[in-house]
Amino acid sequence: MIGPTAYFDPTTTDGLDAPLRGLVERRARALGSAYRLFYAEPVQFVRGEGSHLFDADGTDYLDVYNNVPSVGHAHPRVAEAIARQVATLTTHTRYLDAALIDYAEDLLGTFPAHLDNVMFTCTGSEANDLALRIAKTATGATGVIVTANAYHGVTTETAAISPSLGGPGSLADWVRFVPAPRPGVDFAAAVRASIAELEGSGIRPAALIVDTIFASDGVLPDAPGLADAVAAVHAAGGLFLADEVQPGFGRLGTGLWGFDRHQLAPDLVTLGKPMGNGYPVAAVVARSGLVDAFGRHARYFNTFGGSNVAIAAAQATLDVVRDEGLVEHAREIGDYLLERLRALQAERGSIRDVRGSGLFIGVELDTEEQALAAVNGLKLRRILLGETGKDNTVLKIRPPLVFDRSDADRLMEGLAEVVE
Amino acid sequence: MIGPTAYFDPTTTDGLDAPLRGLVERRARALGSAYRLFYAEPVQFVRGEGSHLFDADGTDYLDVYNNVPSVGHAHPRVAEAIARQVATLTTHTRYLDAALIDYAEDLLGTFPAHLDNVMFTCTGSEANDLALRIAKTATGATGVIVTANAYHGVTTETAAISPSLGGPGSLADWVRFVPAPRPGVDFAAAVRASIAELEGSGIRPAALIVDTIFASDGVLPDAPGLADAVAAVHAAGGLFLADEVQPGFGRLGTGLWGFDRHQLAPDLVTLGKPMGNGYPVAAVVARSGLVDAFGRHARYFNTFGGSNVAIAAAQATLDVVRDEGLVEHAREIGDYLLERLRALQAERGSIRDVRGSGLFIGVELDTEEQALAAVNGLKLRRILLGETGKDNTVLKIRPPLVFDRSDADRLMEGLAEVVE
Repeated sequence: MIGPTAYFDPTTTDGLDAPLRGLVERRARALGSAYRLFYAEPVQFVRGEGSHLFDADGTDYLDVYNNVPSVGHAHPRVAEAIARQVATLTTHTRYLDAALIDYAEDLLGTFPAHLDNVMFTCTGSEANDLALRIAKTATGATGVIVTANAYHGVTTETAAISPSLGGPGSLADWVRFVPAPRPGVDFAAAVRASIAELEGSGIRPAALIVDTIFASDGVLPDAPGLADAVAAVHAAGGLFLADEVQPGFGRLGTGLWGFDRHQLAPDLVTLGKPMGNGYPVAAVVARSGLVDAFGRHARYFNTFGGSNVAIAAAQATLDVVRDEGLVEHAREIGDYLLERLRALQAERGSIRDVRGSGLFIGVELDTEEQALAAVNGLKLRRILLGETGKDNTVLKIRPPLVFDRSDADRLMEGLAEVVE
Repeated sequence: MIGPTAYFDPTTTDGLDAPLRGLVERRARALGSAYRLFYAEPVQFVRGEGSHLFDADGTDYLDVYNNVPSVGHAHPRVAEAIARQVATLTTHTRYLDAALIDYAEDLLGTFPAHLDNVMFTCTGSEANDLALRIAKTATGATGVIVTANAYHGVTTETAAISPSLGGPGSLADWVRFVPAPRPGVDFAAAVRASIAELEGSGIRPAALIVDTIFASDGVLPDAPGLADAVAAVHAAGGLFLADEVQPGFGRLGTGLWGFDRHQLAPDLVTLGKPMGNGYPVAAVVARSGLVDAFGRHARYFNTFGGSNVAIAAAQATLDVVRDEGLVEHAREIGDYLLERLRALQAERGSIRDVRGSGLFIGVELDTEEQALAAVNGLKLRRILLGETGKDNTVLKIRPPLVFDRSDADRLMEGLAEVVE
């Protein structure tokens, strides 16, 4: 999540030229005050291709921000699969659909064997919300443990476990927050203490849920103590939910799923953002025993979830990830970037840390002001990038997976100019 | 919602031919036990057009069930709008997008002036969930009043106000249920009693939420006492949320929105299913004051909500509704159906009631068995239709809005054969 300071300030329309000002003001009137726009001078794009976005003048921006168009903006294979299906049939999962079954089997084949059921939703929020419903029903417990600056969604239930959103709901009595795992933090001890604290309040733990790259906590690839924490949750009768909405589908360069990097066996996994390269499709992958426990209490139907078009988009996206070797590509370009970023770190005092895996990299600066200056400085150089972490001090490098070596060089050139 | 008895029974695969049985068994293994399939012998469609669906043999089924492909299955204008946009650009609401602003203004222009903000989600569940977050934040209250067999969504929060789903969550202490408004029910008195009961438990009412056609309560177009109930909720400091996910976008034949039929001024309106003719797009429409109150506590972002493609689909769908005169068409065909159904009622003792508006009509039979026999009998005649209501006794006529007079005649011919 980009820091609040890098958003457009709606009280500053005076500084914009007339056409842009008109659009921004019309937008604020119609959409209201809960929405935000990126950048002091908002941008409008009209076309995307690969890891590049283009404005109305044809100016090329390098996209180092968007993880949703994971196989590249407007990828022709995905676009054609959607176009073909939408002109043919869009129905739902109450009719049989062989393509849905083929995709479900293909997707499940990429997971450990114990994860043998998949359920389709439209968004990562819906997936995490459903996973929590399943976890709470299957365990009969209600307690949920999340990291201190987690983001898991915008439904009422998932907003309550997303302290990075701020706002009401974060103080639900069934939620406990632990510091995200990084060197110097005893993550397992913090989780054990939360379990004890929950139990002391008469609340049994239903689940520990973590984004396996800890994106909103500042991009933390090493996660020391995570395996011990999962063992503690299991011992207390709770489940481990791996949120792969951001790290999943190959971004980390080490396989399709982030939990694999930590040799973990989650009970539930949630998928989203890049799953259909921008088409709204998401999923919960789970042990069938958990789905059975849920199914005894409630049947499940999601109007658009798993529609013929959603499946066409998801299948094409997964095919492209494999056919274009994007997992290996993410590792190769990610390693190259890490090497160059560490070389830059050796030169620049303000870079406190460089860390990441594949094409999910965090560059931690000393202060939020430095990060904000870098984000805005890069935007002037037509490079789109956000910041993350509790204090908004971490530059977040998270481009489409087709980001190539020349893109990496352009990014490094920009960073060298804007980082003190 | 079709009654549980009209679903496929997964313990009866023995009766299916080998290829169908293979598909059904693979599906059950991969998707698990919370999903349901329609019909004793499930169907697979490969193509849709207008109000017709086609199986692999090219056999034509008349669709009297699906309200999502509202302007017709695979409508070429919507399909082309999606195809064009998905091949060009799919991004999100943190960049400026003139088409999003144009659509937002166009959509808001169809509402009373006091409803001046729109926020985009992907599903009706997300829209109702967000509307409840806004209502609870703006009022500082938590109580919600819904009808006894309501359906408002599948997130944790919306499932808790959806007794028609059954299952855990329906017993949340902030929810109160009232009988749906129909002749013989004093709806306003029931709502006033619920408000008093909530207040007696120390809970202030945040909202009364109703589907303005009461679809899952059995299709109740007249809603006697609804206006008085809304006044009572307002007097108690609560809001009125009109759920237009099913009745909205012209289905009732009397304008675009169901609440108009009752001369009501909702505080919040939710939209979904037909909004993008199958593309996952949904929305909350609200007074800006409520959005401001929410925005002071939380900012809002939905990854896929209001994307360029979602907006292209929604704009094309709204354009088709107007350009093809589908509101008037729904009224004309609906009136014709109501007349023929009432003639059939005069002949058949099992038809207890015929009621509806436009292309949302309920035919209430004496027993669930009769309704089930009718649904399955129609399916043998290649006519797709569901049942609804607390006791599953109401045949639900809810086709794509392009349903024409010859479709209506075919439906009536089938009904005459299957209704006792």
